[in-house]
Amino acid sequence: MEHPDCPLCRDVGGLPVASATRWRVIRAAEPDFPAFYRVIWTAHVAEFSDLPLADRDALMAVVVRVEEVLRAALSPTKINLATLGNVVPHVHWHVIARFDWDSHFPNPVWGERRRTLAVPAEARLALPLSELDGRVRDAVMALPG
Amino acid sequence: MEHPDCPLCRDVGGLPVASATRWRVIRAAEPDFPAFYRVIWTAHVAEFSDLPLADRDALMAVVVRVEEVLRAALSPTKINLATLGNVVPHVHWHVIARFDWDSHFPNPVWGERRRTLAVPAEARLALPLSELDGRVRDAVMALPG
Repeated sequence: MEHPDCPLCRDVGGLPVASATRWRVIRAAEPDFPAFYRVIWTAHVAEFSDLPLADRDALMAVVVRVEEVLRAALSPTKINLATLGNVVPHVHWHVIARFDWDSHFPNPVWGERRRTLAVPAEARLALPLSELDGRVRDAVMALPG
Repeated sequence: MEHPDCPLCRDVGGLPVASATRWRVIRAAEPDFPAFYRVIWTAHVAEFSDLPLADRDALMAVVVRVEEVLRAALSPTKINLATLGNVVPHVHWHVIARFDWDSHFPNPVWGERRRTLAVPAEARLALPLSELDGRVRDAVMALPG
């Protein structure tokens, strides 16, 4: 199933947060969006609909669990979910906590910047990222791997 | 459940394609991305994780069915799925067929334009949009409403 040219087959793809057989969760190192996690499917499949229903359900359960942790811990203005894969066609979900004060809000993170922050975005979160990572890890590791 | 200030409570939100009790499918009128559908949840809820599991499953079944129709009919380079809602916080999923020749590829549709097309994007699709709408309608109307 592994694809030699695929960066998500080759590398973990970010800061490792949790890992199971079928999926892993990483945190993206995006200074503008510190609470930006990715749920990466282990097998190299390009499209969400390439997965059978049971696997789609397992994957969305992880995505929703990450969303729930971000909402409970950070009270974000909005959660953004997306699976694009135009550059890396290996199924991965972006789970991003957005705030009305962040650099791009209400634009998508891929859109135009709206403002420059006086303090790093990370400093405005309600808890340190190491603690947030721990909460995400605890929540997703309770799910079937 | 209706919210008087919400455009997706007030209006259909695009070209109507299919409608059931809990959800509807519309086509966005985006000339750069002609095969751009949205699956809109009927009730006014802001976040995907606000929905109970059975409703999330029903919603993702519609999203996946639209994705499958777009793949079968158009052989796109990639499908993009997203639920953002920064501007309209009423759960809706974007389902977008992307092509390596489209105006923004590989950037997200919300990102920077990469090229100008000599012919309208719609003219490059393998079938007319009216026929595509019909296939999407037939596929999703077979699902529980």
